[in-house]
Amino acid sequence: MHAAAVGDLVQLVSMRDRKSFLLRIQPDERLETHNGVIQHADLLGQPFGSTVRSHLGADFVLLRPSTAEITRTLKRRSQIIFPKDLGLILLRLSIEPGQEVIEAGTGSGALTVALARAVGADGRVRSYDLRADMQNTACHNLELVGLSERVTLKTRDIADGFDETDAPALFLDVPNPWDYLEQAHRALRSGGFFGALLPTTNQVTTLLTELQRRSFGLTEVVEVLLRNYKTVAARFRPADRMVAHTGYLVFARALQPAQPPSQPVAR
Amino acid sequence: MHAAAVGDLVQLVSMRDRKSFLLRIQPDERLETHNGVIQHADLLGQPFGSTVRSHLGADFVLLRPSTAEITRTLKRRSQIIFPKDLGLILLRLSIEPGQEVIEAGTGSGALTVALARAVGADGRVRSYDLRADMQNTACHNLELVGLSERVTLKTRDIADGFDETDAPALFLDVPNPWDYLEQAHRALRSGGFFGALLPTTNQVTTLLTELQRRSFGLTEVVEVLLRNYKTVAARFRPADRMVAHTGYLVFARALQPAQPPSQPVAR
Amino acid sequence: MHAAAVGDLVQLVSMRDRKSFLLRIQPDERLETHNGVIQHADLLGQPFGSTVRSHLGADFVLLRPSTAEITRTLKRRSQIIFPKDLGLILLRLSIEPGQEVIEAGTGSGALTVALARAVGADGRVRSYDLRADMQNTACHNLELVGLSERVTLKTRDIADGFDETDAPALFLDVPNPWDYLEQAHRALRSGGFFGALLPTTNQVTTLLTELQRRSFGLTEVVEVLLRNYKTVAARFRPADRMVAHTGYLVFARALQPAQPPSQPVAR
Amino acid sequence: MHAAAVGDLVQLVSMRDRKSFLLRIQPDERLETHNGVIQHADLLGQPFGSTVRSHLGADFVLLRPSTAEITRTLKRRSQIIFPKDLGLILLRLSIEPGQEVIEAGTGSGALTVALARAVGADGRVRSYDLRADMQNTACHNLELVGLSERVTLKTRDIADGFDETDAPALFLDVPNPWDYLEQAHRALRSGGFFGALLPTTNQVTTLLTELQRRSFGLTEVVEVLLRNYKTVAARFRPADRMVAHTGYLVFARALQPAQPPSQPVAR
Repeated sequence: MHAAAVGDLVQLVSMRDRKSFLLRIQPDERLETHNGVIQHADLLGQPFGSTVRSHLGADFVLLRPSTAEITRTLKRRSQIIFPKDLGLILLRLSIEPGQEVIEAGTGSGALTVALARAVGADGRVRSYDLRADMQNTACHNLELVGLSERVTLKTRDIADGFDETDAPALFLDVPNPWDYLEQAHRALRSGGFFGALLPTTNQVTTLLTELQRRSFGLTEVVEVLLRNYKTVAARFRPADRMVAHTGYLVFARALQPAQPPSQPVAR
Repeated sequence: MHAAAVGDLVQLVSMRDRKSFLLRIQPDERLETHNGVIQHADLLGQPFGSTVRSHLGADFVLLRPSTAEITRTLKRRSQIIFPKDLGLILLRLSIEPGQEVIEAGTGSGALTVALARAVGADGRVRSYDLRADMQNTACHNLELVGLSERVTLKTRDIADGFDETDAPALFLDVPNPWDYLEQAHRALRSGGFFGALLPTTNQVTTLLTELQRRSFGLTEVVEVLLRNYKTVAARFRPADRMVAHTGYLVFARALQPAQPPSQPVAR
Repeated sequence: MHAAAVGDLVQLVSMRDRKSFLLRIQPDERLETHNGVIQHADLLGQPFGSTVRSHLGADFVLLRPSTAEITRTLKRRSQIIFPKDLGLILLRLSIEPGQEVIEAGTGSGALTVALARAVGADGRVRSYDLRADMQNTACHNLELVGLSERVTLKTRDIADGFDETDAPALFLDVPNPWDYLEQAHRALRSGGFFGALLPTTNQVTTLLTELQRRSFGLTEVVEVLLRNYKTVAARFRPADRMVAHTGYLVFARALQPAQPPSQPVAR
Repeated sequence: MHAAAVGDLVQLVSMRDRKSFLLRIQPDERLETHNGVIQHADLLGQPFGSTVRSHLGADFVLLRPSTAEITRTLKRRSQIIFPKDLGLILLRLSIEPGQEVIEAGTGSGALTVALARAVGADGRVRSYDLRADMQNTACHNLELVGLSERVTLKTRDIADGFDETDAPALFLDVPNPWDYLEQAHRALRSGGFFGALLPTTNQVTTLLTELQRRSFGLTEVVEVLLRNYKTVAARFRPADRMVAHTGYLVFARALQPAQPPSQPVAR
């Protein structure tokens, strides 16, 4: 039986409105919701997937939170990267267990969490941000979800460069990524994966121009549109409204600087 | 310097048309392309991200392939799951390093590869398919990309049930997933992640009805639309055509069967 | 000079928040808005496209309203058909000046207005609805926008059939259009244009089945997604959120009932 | 009975593959298709919506073509504006029967046809294009579909201005509309409707900047995405691929040039 224990990170989802709460179980704590109070102690020994009831009689499902849910529920100081984009970012950057990867800025830590989960206990995320207040929020979030040990937060201006020189992947979630391409190229291993997220087309065109000048190649720009459906079988249809835009995702590979062309290879 | 060595899985991308080739470097082999021949031996010692030239003078970029590229380049016997969907599947199923997860059917192995990369060397994918010919193709693909050791292929009818009983996540890429929900529920740990991909709305409504009857909950149905952009900075615009539909993604959690309601929890 | 006169239907758009007001100019009336009061008399003689100022100093642009704006601003008793769908409906039903076309139900009259504008002063819209309260609202709206003379409202159950037998086009905006296909076929001229708008996939599949049985053909089902952009040149990007779904549009042609096959035609 | 007669513009749609043919019935002509030959004479007296058979035994449905079908079937010398965009253009420009409207360039005449149908026999389309070859194609298309009398083609550089000064609506389908905004403003009546279609974001941002400088206002930029569905009721699903992009639609109103602000209006 898979059951909740002290110290577990769990999610409680209200059956009334699907509102979701993230907590780490501590014997003496209580969760206060708009649908009533739940004592942490009452969760102990309950199997995941079971229903618990608040003091107001509202039912909540007890679950381990998914990576997507965790990022959605983080305390925020800034716009976070949405799950629809996170999935594609991890895949296109080809993040794997054991890797040591880089991101800047840290922001509220949504991508940090997703990267930390993907690289696993043997991997490492180096996360740069100029703003200490942002990193404090991210630090708080990482501790809550138990990922602090996989993340190194660096309160630093990336204009001064990254400490790393052999990263398999690097993601820039900053408004002016074109200003840091030289630094990014030096931080990446040859052939490494570069990504960025930009809200406006003007930013994208500036970045495209600079990527070409800075020995990045195989550039791709994509948008992810996620459409949710209502789950009533007899009236199956899309939700009425959706997120129309978060940003354009730009991906590229760090190439060897163009040199005297490589010697002809085939004979 | 990060350079190609014997036994490496590499990708060569033609600079002319971005056509991509996957190969495992072996000293005496050669790659024949529409743009000329490249000797494997000539790749040895070349840094990733550098350019090699075919005997016809065509340039190719030498790279380590991304998970997305690998799945796109697999030998196919069936429709594969697209990268746009793979990213979200991994995120929503909350796949992590070290997990032992289940999928059926194996198909050509695109999701198998993505899962195997995400669970890492310490994890495991159990992949069921009724058809031996499919699994032979998947087996070939897994060997090519070096992931065989992380995958157990089971040529089996899942109507007879899964061998596992504590899987954190299970994905059904079969035309009639509603017929295997009891088996899936038994294979999943309590609270575990369930997913399915279905091309038609009729299939989705059938599955929605059955999920509710079979103690699955928190069901979500989503569609991912990926829009590619042309990367010319001075004429930035979406590509002319796009994939309009692969399938509807259905996600749910394995709940505890409804019982005499759990005792009130709060005091 | 194109200037506002007594009796004109005009639109005032607040420059602060783009909120739009529809009015018919009458010498002694006044418009009260959240941004202040404007006397109708002060609009007289003002050229369209000019700016008028409320007693609170807020600027409004004086315009003739577009068909799209009119339908958006109508008094509503029900969900209206959106401009994104109206444009395609008019085009796919091939509505032309002078035609006499049919719709049911009337609803709040958004499609009624669009049809009445498209058929012009020489055309006619026959609009059926079972509910008198709906038609009262539509009647009010049509009078406001000056289109009453082009529309015949019929408070009638279309199960009893339509009065017309030679309509070039007929649109059903009802929850169960499949129940009225025989009536619709009799009302349409041979080859005539049929359309319907349905929110759920279940409704669409039911309609598709019945259309085939009832001698309709060349059926098409489409969805229109409209994406608005923010119009700041230096930060060009899509709006954050959008309407994800209004309904599926179904179009078909009224065919001759299958008979002993037509004699071979070519020699 | 609504039946085909000499001189009618008709559409024949192959039941095998839905391929569509446009023709004007002339007693001695014949239509040659990939599915066999049909004599025009054999269409005479056939009711619309009936099926005719080619000499190879292939069935075709006989119909009056819709505006959408006509524009799709035109002989082309250039990219045409798609029906998905035409519908919204007509609605947003608020085209009505009897109007005299302007477009440039003529191109192959798809928008010309849609405008000519919408303004009706009492209206008029003034269509400018620098290239005589384009206008020859458009002229041919307009004659085929019987709309020549509603259209005035002007082989002229619009840099030299439009002849009209009181147009209710004007649409620019040219690569550099920002160069003609002064001319467009002079051609439009005060408050008139302006529209343009542009493939790239760079063009849109240039136009946005100039629209503001040239006394256009209430600017909107939208994209229309049309998703087709397969019409098999038991397997209802979107088509596999779709048109991802034709262009961004820009709409604005011709405002009075900013002057000493209008006197305060309310008391």
